[in-house]
Amino acid sequence: MEKRFVYADNAATTRVRPEVLARMLPYFTEVYGNPSGLYSVSRDAAVELDRARAKIAGLLNCEAREIYFTSGGSESDNAAIAGIARKRGRGHIITSKIEHHAVLNTVKALEKEGFSATYVDVDENGIIKLDELKKAIRDDTILITVMYANNEIGTIQPIKEIGELARAHKIPFHTDAVQAAGHLNIDVRAENIDMLSLSAHKFGGPKGCGVLYVRRGVNPRPLIYGGGQESGRRAGTENLASIVGMAEALELSLSGLEQKNARVTEMRDRLIDGILKIPYTRLNGDRTRRLPGNVNVSVEYIEGESLILLLDLNGICASSGSACTTGSLDPSHVLLALGLSHEVAHGSLRLTINDETTDDDIDYILDTLPRVVDRLRAMSPVWERRPE
Amino acid sequence: MEKRFVYADNAATTRVRPEVLARMLPYFTEVYGNPSGLYSVSRDAAVELDRARAKIAGLLNCEAREIYFTSGGSESDNAAIAGIARKRGRGHIITSKIEHHAVLNTVKALEKEGFSATYVDVDENGIIKLDELKKAIRDDTILITVMYANNEIGTIQPIKEIGELARAHKIPFHTDAVQAAGHLNIDVRAENIDMLSLSAHKFGGPKGCGVLYVRRGVNPRPLIYGGGQESGRRAGTENLASIVGMAEALELSLSGLEQKNARVTEMRDRLIDGILKIPYTRLNGDRTRRLPGNVNVSVEYIEGESLILLLDLNGICASSGSACTTGSLDPSHVLLALGLSHEVAHGSLRLTINDETTDDDIDYILDTLPRVVDRLRAMSPVWERRPE
Repeated sequence: MEKRFVYADNAATTRVRPEVLARMLPYFTEVYGNPSGLYSVSRDAAVELDRARAKIAGLLNCEAREIYFTSGGSESDNAAIAGIARKRGRGHIITSKIEHHAVLNTVKALEKEGFSATYVDVDENGIIKLDELKKAIRDDTILITVMYANNEIGTIQPIKEIGELARAHKIPFHTDAVQAAGHLNIDVRAENIDMLSLSAHKFGGPKGCGVLYVRRGVNPRPLIYGGGQESGRRAGTENLASIVGMAEALELSLSGLEQKNARVTEMRDRLIDGILKIPYTRLNGDRTRRLPGNVNVSVEYIEGESLILLLDLNGICASSGSACTTGSLDPSHVLLALGLSHEVAHGSLRLTINDETTDDDIDYILDTLPRVVDRLRAMSPVWERRPE
Repeated sequence: MEKRFVYADNAATTRVRPEVLARMLPYFTEVYGNPSGLYSVSRDAAVELDRARAKIAGLLNCEAREIYFTSGGSESDNAAIAGIARKRGRGHIITSKIEHHAVLNTVKALEKEGFSATYVDVDENGIIKLDELKKAIRDDTILITVMYANNEIGTIQPIKEIGELARAHKIPFHTDAVQAAGHLNIDVRAENIDMLSLSAHKFGGPKGCGVLYVRRGVNPRPLIYGGGQESGRRAGTENLASIVGMAEALELSLSGLEQKNARVTEMRDRLIDGILKIPYTRLNGDRTRRLPGNVNVSVEYIEGESLILLLDLNGICASSGSACTTGSLDPSHVLLALGLSHEVAHGSLRLTINDETTDDDIDYILDTLPRVVDRLRAMSPVWERRPE
């Protein structure tokens, strides 16, 4: 099969959609006014800012004034979690063991400041144990933060149920929806979500731009103090080009979502079935309760990093675990939470596709991957010594 | 004189230079890889990230590893100030009365958390009183933060002297150089600066992108926790397009700076001289120790806001005070610190030009402004009743 370029790391970041870039361009050199100004080129900018806010609010089913623009998912997560913690001064935070580091490391930093935390377990499919979450609730619990969908294994959490539980106990509920936004239909009202983080570059928007949705009545302390932008919740001149691009990208991503997801899911399942034909492989994460575009498999007797490099030589961009921790020698905390051994966790491969992926791309991966795995195993002393 | 469009609010934000936008474009749709990835499209991104970092470090005279990318000036200010404060846990912070709100409001928030602070006075020209600053130093002083140049009145502070003082007392010194970067030659080594904030959109780069320089050995706590980007100091997928644009914009701004500044200063002085011919006007801020592009005048017996709106009708974009606080009814804290009365402070006008400004633009402002002021005063009851 002829070599081709296949980008299959869309959970790490996506290409900006050309239509999105086209929408952004005027805001760099034409409508460049500071939205806080009083003159026309600024007022035009302010109008576009309002439009983008209203559009995103509509897509999430909240009010425009509940949408705050940030520099991305990590900032949104920090703002939500540290914002509630600093507002309350003390207390207990509940999260899961498989959160993104933007959540985990924020909670850990707050623990050092005197807050306490419970990291709830997931089952072997990567779904949070609701009964454990329920048991973890204390009188001094000030926040529950559980991700919408996992960045490594794509499992989708029972958000609505967690939201109901939180609401019943009058505890604010935040969800890191960085991997879900633009890929699943999210309704913050129906799902009882009090705060939600999303990031534009995960759904065809630009990097450096995100949203924190904060339900009216929930008042985290600002992370970034300064001017009165974003109703005093997030200072800094608004990044209008990116904000307009993000609104456009979210709208494009969610339009015709059902059909797109049916096609992406079909490609994903074909990938999974094909890969599992390779001996000594296993799927990580729930088979059905997972993002349409996520494939995460462990390939025993090889190193994930070598696999990524050989795939790259064949034109395939993939990752082993999360991009944010690449370079670290520790195996993925998510895979360990599923009960995988260090060895098996090290040999994991994540392929994340989206609606820009084609059937030919899938064919190419399925043609290339077994050959690459064979080659790596042929060089591996542990493969030779594997138990029969 | 024929009506023209004159953008004279470059301290609020600048138009992205077309050459900068051209440099940014490939990173949206071609070199879009997450710099943390292991495959080629990511490695290419990582190489460009390093290049941008090295370029900016060279322009500020520091090491590449001392440059951290942020979402802009406000984030950089917060990260530096709160980062040192949270690292130390307690102590005293020295700043000035005329800082940007990203500094002032961060210090105020820290005061609520139990830190103490001294807000040092400025003289009638807007220059910090060094003797007062010296007297403010205490045994428990953990940080001195004084802006490089003021965003409203353009006065340039004696940064090197403040840096020397701080170093002599072994106190970290941060400067908000958002208005200075790209407009003045900054040398963090020679000027004894330990931390410095800058923002790309103030010198022809994109909004939503900035730098925090942190001298090796100074270790503020991160503001945004998460992945290991920026050596663990600032989590979040790097906003490469904007970072490349920022590096390009800084280089372009500083190339031939002396000649450009000579021309801009000449235009500025012509503006000042022309405006001061209008009766009952005064220049705010030091006449010479000010940014080449900054004009700030008080025009008595008129409201600044009305002036801005009438100028806008004539195609001139200007501001009254800082863009970040527009909409607030309080007069500028900077002008009050100079000793101006509330009334006079309310009638202030800021015109900020740069090397894209032309002599025809200056002629047009000087032709338009006196007529606009006359018209407003003619409608004003206080003008009629002015003391002779």
